[in-house]
Amino acid sequence: MPTTVKAYAATSATEPLTPTTIERRDVGPRDVRIDITYAGICHSDIHTARGEWGATNYPIVVGHEIAGVVAEVGSEVTRFAVGDRVGVGCMVDSCGECQYCRRGDEQYCVKGNIQTYGGVGKDGVPTQGGYSQAIVVTEDFVLRIPDGLELDVAAPLLCAGITLYSPLRHWGAGPGTRVAVVGLGGLGHMGVQLAHALGAEVTVLSQSLKKQEEGLRLGADSYFATSDPDTFTRLAASFDLILNTVSASIDVDAYLSLLDVDGTMVNVGAPEHPQSVRAFSLLMRRISFAGSTIGGIRETQEMLDFCAEHGIAAVIETIGVEQVNEAYERVLASDVRYRFVIDTATLA
Amino acid sequence: MPTTVKAYAATSATEPLTPTTIERRDVGPRDVRIDITYAGICHSDIHTARGEWGATNYPIVVGHEIAGVVAEVGSEVTRFAVGDRVGVGCMVDSCGECQYCRRGDEQYCVKGNIQTYGGVGKDGVPTQGGYSQAIVVTEDFVLRIPDGLELDVAAPLLCAGITLYSPLRHWGAGPGTRVAVVGLGGLGHMGVQLAHALGAEVTVLSQSLKKQEEGLRLGADSYFATSDPDTFTRLAASFDLILNTVSASIDVDAYLSLLDVDGTMVNVGAPEHPQSVRAFSLLMRRISFAGSTIGGIRETQEMLDFCAEHGIAAVIETIGVEQVNEAYERVLASDVRYRFVIDTATLA
Repeated sequence: MPTTVKAYAATSATEPLTPTTIERRDVGPRDVRIDITYAGICHSDIHTARGEWGATNYPIVVGHEIAGVVAEVGSEVTRFAVGDRVGVGCMVDSCGECQYCRRGDEQYCVKGNIQTYGGVGKDGVPTQGGYSQAIVVTEDFVLRIPDGLELDVAAPLLCAGITLYSPLRHWGAGPGTRVAVVGLGGLGHMGVQLAHALGAEVTVLSQSLKKQEEGLRLGADSYFATSDPDTFTRLAASFDLILNTVSASIDVDAYLSLLDVDGTMVNVGAPEHPQSVRAFSLLMRRISFAGSTIGGIRETQEMLDFCAEHGIAAVIETIGVEQVNEAYERVLASDVRYRFVIDTATLA
Repeated sequence: MPTTVKAYAATSATEPLTPTTIERRDVGPRDVRIDITYAGICHSDIHTARGEWGATNYPIVVGHEIAGVVAEVGSEVTRFAVGDRVGVGCMVDSCGECQYCRRGDEQYCVKGNIQTYGGVGKDGVPTQGGYSQAIVVTEDFVLRIPDGLELDVAAPLLCAGITLYSPLRHWGAGPGTRVAVVGLGGLGHMGVQLAHALGAEVTVLSQSLKKQEEGLRLGADSYFATSDPDTFTRLAASFDLILNTVSASIDVDAYLSLLDVDGTMVNVGAPEHPQSVRAFSLLMRRISFAGSTIGGIRETQEMLDFCAEHGIAAVIETIGVEQVNEAYERVLASDVRYRFVIDTATLA
């Protein structure tokens, strides 16, 4: 029997989010019902709520950085029990059969994974996200939050954490590699901590030196202002990997000039406008300009375990759900250090 | 004692190439003097002769696809003897000491390799290229042309061949990989042969089907016209590696949509204008947009040996040096199958 839960929804591209109720499906044999305790606010939530990434099917409940506690499990669930501390990220299902699903890269599912919100579940019902009291998810897409991690600071790991961890691992960040993180926001502050814990030499490239002290405290070895043209001269050809977390348009060729031979610049944010790249910026040192999106379920679990082991967590500002519209404005103004997390108890 | 040799030079960005003489340095202890028999015409020659790649120091003798016979060796030369069949490509020297030179990637020399023309040699003298009767080069930058390869069809391998071979090897083309070659010109016709011989499944993406028969004969498994929009639907997400040999501007996002997860599109041509790339084209399947330029000396030798072993050569049209200006116009009109080679005996 479906359960009605309280939630906060966007009803149009231009209206503020408002209280509502949604139905969650009955717990099937392989499902887990999670009582949500915290939901992080990701920039993607705002893009979707405001219809900026193509047509949004309103009303929509966004939120894909979900942490909570297992409230009920289906008869065939083997990996979770009531009371377990768990999380859900950007995906709630996938085909499970294609080569990418089989190797644990569900984010690249050939049929398309089912997104936590804005997708359509295998039951044909539109998916609704984490700004709500509970969610029902197949156990294959539920992550275990290790004991060493508090639920509130774990929530943003489910998107922001894995979005940085996956490319750092894929492109081999570790001892002896020189990693630059562009932008010290919700994504960037995770990138700095993760790259540092992986053993890489970490540089933050931020517009100004405003957050320098915090950047260094999070694990950066050095910190440069990109508003200073000297930065680009001084750091020429000095990185192996640049992770660009910034959604605003940047001078891509200038950043590519900072890469050493065989270096890669990875977009993990999604600038709205096309980026301009000169072939010579790529040719002369065999440079790659790449992109990466979240990570697979297995890798997400690995990331959570890694964070617990290394004492890494998101730096958050906890808010009540009634502050969500104000929080959106502050995200857009980069006025948050570094992630808003909704205490979903405030929905009650 | 310097030797005066006949050559063909560009004297300004707008004048046709004309006969001249140049001085070649005396053969030093580690130098090899090569009597040039053939010089290929590369698109780069035209860009440089016409000052399209920044300021050209006129007069300039271009040409970096050089094949010939050793005429004299210095006292310390160990690897070559008079009469050997040899080649010279895009570089004639490098620092020899940086990490890239040491590992055989002289093309990425930290101090900058010395280009065959338009550079400045270690003796302080501007370098002059292959549209000439002879050249003097340190033995470290001289390639051996295997017996199985005729000098005329070997000449274009020194630039066009290695330009395709190096990225094919670097990005792992071989059995089980799906390679697309964009454009069937001087570079593309080498890419098709090399990718096929490496064991990859090869597709040509050309504007029209005009050269389809030849493409298939060169080793392509399939051939599609990019002027047909169906091509992009039909081939969606179906390649591991795309080598773009085209200098004209193309719709990069459309080509990126043809790459499967973790696929790479490599620019080996150098479009004059910046290219426009959407972050989403890269993000959603962890795609890379990359560049590559020639290859190191060791890899160039490997490529020549590979070509001899597999019966691969450039398909050429041999011309006398007095036809070079006309040939330039035909290169620009894509009216050559597939490489012009100057018979430098016609300089005499």
